[in-house]
Amino acid sequence: MNKLYSLLVVALFSMAALPISAQQQEQRLTPEVMARLFPRGVVSPDYNKDGSVTFRLRANDATKVELECQMFAGTKEMTKDADGVWSITVTPEQPDIYPYAFVVDGTKIADPNNMFIFPNEGFKYSLADVRGASPSVQDMQNVPHGKISYRYYHSKGLGFDRPMCVYTPAGYDPAGKEKLPVLYLIHGMTDTYETWFKVGRVNLIMDNLIAQGLAKRMIIVMPYANPAPEMAQRGIKGGVNIMGTDIFTNEILNEVIPFIESNYNVYTDAFNRAIAGFSMGGRQTLACGLANPDKFMWVGAMAPAIFGQEPNQNFENGTWASIETLQKSLKLFWLGCGSDDFLIQASRDLDASLTKRGLKHTFYNPGGGHTWMNCRDYIELFAKEIFK
Amino acid sequence: MNKLYSLLVVALFSMAALPISAQQQEQRLTPEVMARLFPRGVVSPDYNKDGSVTFRLRANDATKVELECQMFAGTKEMTKDADGVWSITVTPEQPDIYPYAFVVDGTKIADPNNMFIFPNEGFKYSLADVRGASPSVQDMQNVPHGKISYRYYHSKGLGFDRPMCVYTPAGYDPAGKEKLPVLYLIHGMTDTYETWFKVGRVNLIMDNLIAQGLAKRMIIVMPYANPAPEMAQRGIKGGVNIMGTDIFTNEILNEVIPFIESNYNVYTDAFNRAIAGFSMGGRQTLACGLANPDKFMWVGAMAPAIFGQEPNQNFENGTWASIETLQKSLKLFWLGCGSDDFLIQASRDLDASLTKRGLKHTFYNPGGGHTWMNCRDYIELFAKEIFK
Repeated sequence: MNKLYSLLVVALFSMAALPISAQQQEQRLTPEVMARLFPRGVVSPDYNKDGSVTFRLRANDATKVELECQMFAGTKEMTKDADGVWSITVTPEQPDIYPYAFVVDGTKIADPNNMFIFPNEGFKYSLADVRGASPSVQDMQNVPHGKISYRYYHSKGLGFDRPMCVYTPAGYDPAGKEKLPVLYLIHGMTDTYETWFKVGRVNLIMDNLIAQGLAKRMIIVMPYANPAPEMAQRGIKGGVNIMGTDIFTNEILNEVIPFIESNYNVYTDAFNRAIAGFSMGGRQTLACGLANPDKFMWVGAMAPAIFGQEPNQNFENGTWASIETLQKSLKLFWLGCGSDDFLIQASRDLDASLTKRGLKHTFYNPGGGHTWMNCRDYIELFAKEIFK
Repeated sequence: MNKLYSLLVVALFSMAALPISAQQQEQRLTPEVMARLFPRGVVSPDYNKDGSVTFRLRANDATKVELECQMFAGTKEMTKDADGVWSITVTPEQPDIYPYAFVVDGTKIADPNNMFIFPNEGFKYSLADVRGASPSVQDMQNVPHGKISYRYYHSKGLGFDRPMCVYTPAGYDPAGKEKLPVLYLIHGMTDTYETWFKVGRVNLIMDNLIAQGLAKRMIIVMPYANPAPEMAQRGIKGGVNIMGTDIFTNEILNEVIPFIESNYNVYTDAFNRAIAGFSMGGRQTLACGLANPDKFMWVGAMAPAIFGQEPNQNFENGTWASIETLQKSLKLFWLGCGSDDFLIQASRDLDASLTKRGLKHTFYNPGGGHTWMNCRDYIELFAKEIFK
């Protein structure tokens, strides 16, 4: 079989998704039955040699199909061929990993033929992984690979067992002589504990930086900052104040850090602990990191969701530690936000507040929006700086 | 804030998915801006105390929305309220984890408000996790938890680095005295190396069985049986014969087993190796397991995709080892298939062939179809039997 045909058959051979009635009708999976059960599929995304990407969707009955993709603003109309397959070919300005979805007569869907999906509580986007002529820091390269582990810890504060993702670098030895520092890395609102792994590619970025000697070996802990879905699943009343940070800070300090420090071969002093986060995770990072200078010497706020007078108020009412304390304790206060990010003004306000008060910090202000293309840039830069 | 409102806001606060143009329009995330950017969302699935589940979708412009769910055959129409939210409440015959999707004017979509998604190459379904009054073997219970790790190994045969998931039980010590046996566990066609973890819940099933003393402690390795998507991503020509098993057998024997045995604290003899798989993974299991009696003493075929005269032919032409050899080497030949499975005849034919030839085996034939509800049953039963 040629490549295209075999891919097509594989992509559509979705046995486990058949309605039960269809399953019951078929007793033998002969080639004839397969052809009837599984009509010819499509390859999407299809990465072309010239750097362009072709997206395809079989939707014979649709009257309009559009591509929404973070390679560009808005949507682009796709065109339908005689077989009922809609397609469009686009070329990003640069290779990167771009979230996208199809809009079928107004209904947004993830690409059914793409297994790479954006972990999120509130939407389902697919990921187009456009690679360049030479591999980038977020690509799988032939270097030693660390691993991501899905761990479960009992939260006494919340009363149930909770998930987290943990990156350990290649050669990490739980019983060896080498102790490692730990970065606590927090996702954005509606993201999950998987988003820094599956979209942020933090494991591959770290594998590549460590292999090149550009970052220290470290463990990266990605907890789940929003307990609301787990509470709902268990019928627990109460809810979560989404702009509040108390639950998050309690969880990190009293549950997550003790679990990590009793289960991993790590240092337990503030020099060897960092905290960073994106968007709402940036707000949580500032709340936890700046109120606990004895716990974290490295703080990374990536497009943090903190607004207007909040920084000034937090310094003045003692929510955050004093400038004097932070000036002495912090090794790095890193702030990053893209110029097109809808939260850029918040970062400019925070930068101004820090500058006015004389707290040393780094403000990285590239182009780009409130996107995970920018997040991967932020974590690469932050990871290169910490624990040194 | 009450629970519902906070969940609603959280669920729709999908900042990273905003089109760039919308991001650029907004410079400050005030409550007014938030309300405008993120309209009120819905909770779905909503697990009710009486065991029913309410599914919801906001789709104001749709003319027809249906629920397709493996709790029942076919689809059921949902009804729209004055706010443009479609809903339906259904009660499964028993608590379990059911794949489902919405059909919006003929377009099938995963539930945007449910983070639990079925990892697959060819469709996007969501998972409804309906729990009973007492926890089942697949539920998170307050027992010691093992972990799932995402590992990457270099396949010399295929020429690139490949992923796998690896379950290690609670307290596994890579440098300790306890060596463990290994089960190689294979997904079905269009599934991925994540499906036994995310849909099969093999980690929680094992945690619970081990905690109750019902299964031996073991490592479970879940490789990616289909290299076609990785080849396509890399522009490698050639394709994969989807009914062939050579690539799979080479990969398991020459790449996966050596990686595991050099990176984990495991036994390396046939008594301490098992292989099992679902559907196409069952076909691959039979091909690899029955042709290599010196490698695997425990073989589990779950609704295997093997047809008609293939078993007889494989015994007669020497593709599989002889009955005499297998009779001596195998500790367990386990076959399972549901009566409503569209592959049931294949399992009946295989059972008949084994019986006629006098090869001892177990044929488990419950109700149910070609589903992951059945798969979780199969792995629970198989895991209880092996390495004893």
